[in-house]
Amino acid sequence: MFGLVDKNGKILLKETVSTEHFPVPEDLVMVVSERIRKAALQFPDHELAGVGIGAPNGNFFKGTIEFAPNLKWEGVIPLAELFSDRLKTKVMLTNDANAAAIGEMIFGGAKGMKDFIFITLGTGLGSGIVANGEMIYGHDSFAGEIGHVIMFPDGRQCGCGRKGCLETYCSATGIKRTFSDLQMSHHVKTDMRGLVADAKFIHEKALAGDKDAIEAFNYTGEILGLALANSVAYTSPQAIFLFGGLALAGDFIFRPTRTSFEKHLLHIYRNKIKILPSQLKENDAALLGAASLIWKELK
Amino acid sequence: MFGLVDKNGKILLKETVSTEHFPVPEDLVMVVSERIRKAALQFPDHELAGVGIGAPNGNFFKGTIEFAPNLKWEGVIPLAELFSDRLKTKVMLTNDANAAAIGEMIFGGAKGMKDFIFITLGTGLGSGIVANGEMIYGHDSFAGEIGHVIMFPDGRQCGCGRKGCLETYCSATGIKRTFSDLQMSHHVKTDMRGLVADAKFIHEKALAGDKDAIEAFNYTGEILGLALANSVAYTSPQAIFLFGGLALAGDFIFRPTRTSFEKHLLHIYRNKIKILPSQLKENDAALLGAASLIWKELK
Repeated sequence: MFGLVDKNGKILLKETVSTEHFPVPEDLVMVVSERIRKAALQFPDHELAGVGIGAPNGNFFKGTIEFAPNLKWEGVIPLAELFSDRLKTKVMLTNDANAAAIGEMIFGGAKGMKDFIFITLGTGLGSGIVANGEMIYGHDSFAGEIGHVIMFPDGRQCGCGRKGCLETYCSATGIKRTFSDLQMSHHVKTDMRGLVADAKFIHEKALAGDKDAIEAFNYTGEILGLALANSVAYTSPQAIFLFGGLALAGDFIFRPTRTSFEKHLLHIYRNKIKILPSQLKENDAALLGAASLIWKELK
Repeated sequence: MFGLVDKNGKILLKETVSTEHFPVPEDLVMVVSERIRKAALQFPDHELAGVGIGAPNGNFFKGTIEFAPNLKWEGVIPLAELFSDRLKTKVMLTNDANAAAIGEMIFGGAKGMKDFIFITLGTGLGSGIVANGEMIYGHDSFAGEIGHVIMFPDGRQCGCGRKGCLETYCSATGIKRTFSDLQMSHHVKTDMRGLVADAKFIHEKALAGDKDAIEAFNYTGEILGLALANSVAYTSPQAIFLFGGLALAGDFIFRPTRTSFEKHLLHIYRNKIKILPSQLKENDAALLGAASLIWKELK
């Protein structure tokens, strides 16, 4: 997805293009650059301030995508350089979750906050950590992988090869597994397991009063609350924002998460740190996040 | 302890005074201020650039000590203000571990590093986290309490009232307990438990080949390595520094910690983050740390 976003977060253009159609990144860059150039002509009173990119496995320092498992492009892709060569403008790139976190800071609920944590509850659990008003990239640009904090050393198998990572419990994938385990333990016959049961399906079941579904949210929230309480011991944020499919389940996920969070917080942090829903719209977050990279830089 | 430190980290004066002799903080401030003023006269070619204070439960933003359980002074003490009223100079205050972390950055092994974590292994486990070249204070100045990350929700009772905090395992107190548990499980009759067994005692036993002592270090390192690997997922530091009594045990603690650390790291972080002994001398760290608050500010 790409588009044009003005400095107030207004989306002037939004288009979708699939990386899958482009065997090499140079072709995608050419096509998207052309479309951006043409689209920009429709807004003669605007000037292109720069290009922000949110990408899987994005390296902020180098402007590269590095060994992204879900992309066809292999190895290290200098995507920022490719775009700046084409468009002759400032290009900044970071990973999706960091971009969305900056989007929350510039256009969303974290406006004016200097210390907050942003969590995306999608297929996995992504995160962006802001402290002292700056994104924490770490020495290698790969900071903020809270989804891969090991919660239980002998816990669930994670896609990363280790066991017990937070995202094996607290993500769409995690809650599906929890729900499915609960159903099996209760000998519920169901064809719904596997493909059909996604976070939305479990939310709907919970709304209908299904005990396993509600229990799955409670279990997920209990672990998420513990993990977030531990996170506070690192950066003591003013607020923690939850984004993504699972966060859309509202009280089903927020209530047990907050309860567990307060229970597990060190006393000095109690009753002063908010867990809030992201103010970015699901469909606009990627675009606003990417654009906010540039608008933050220019602020 | 107070003193005079020049901008190269040379200690010109070091004196000790006990807070216990002063029922109210104003008296301590008066006495120490007078001694500093007189001592400064001995160095006519130096100018007092400011006063840095490392204090238990120190609030950097407010310059206060807040409800420190180990001090006689109760409530909130505006220590920075008291000193600046007396000495008419810039006064900065933070907690002990943060001050030592800044000391490591200005005068020790973290010179030139923008992202590192500093861990003190004393009675408890203290920490200071530096990211983007800045100390992370969080929204309330109480960030960096890695010692109170809950490692095992039903683990050892912690002094904070919760269970399973990292410092109940990885600290002088923690290893004493581990050693003592090991001895009991092996039915070792010993009068050495309790008062006598401190980290140094266990280190000496390990040097003498005592299996329980070596095992106690291995167990401590296993948990510390896991906790540090999880910490990397937050801020991806260039290095992690270990300071304090337990760190003085050298390979007995560093070897199992590093092994566990690499084993538990997410693959993107492997083989690139160093676990290093602090370069601050045990007896000078508090003084250098406090002074570095001012020298960092003036850099």
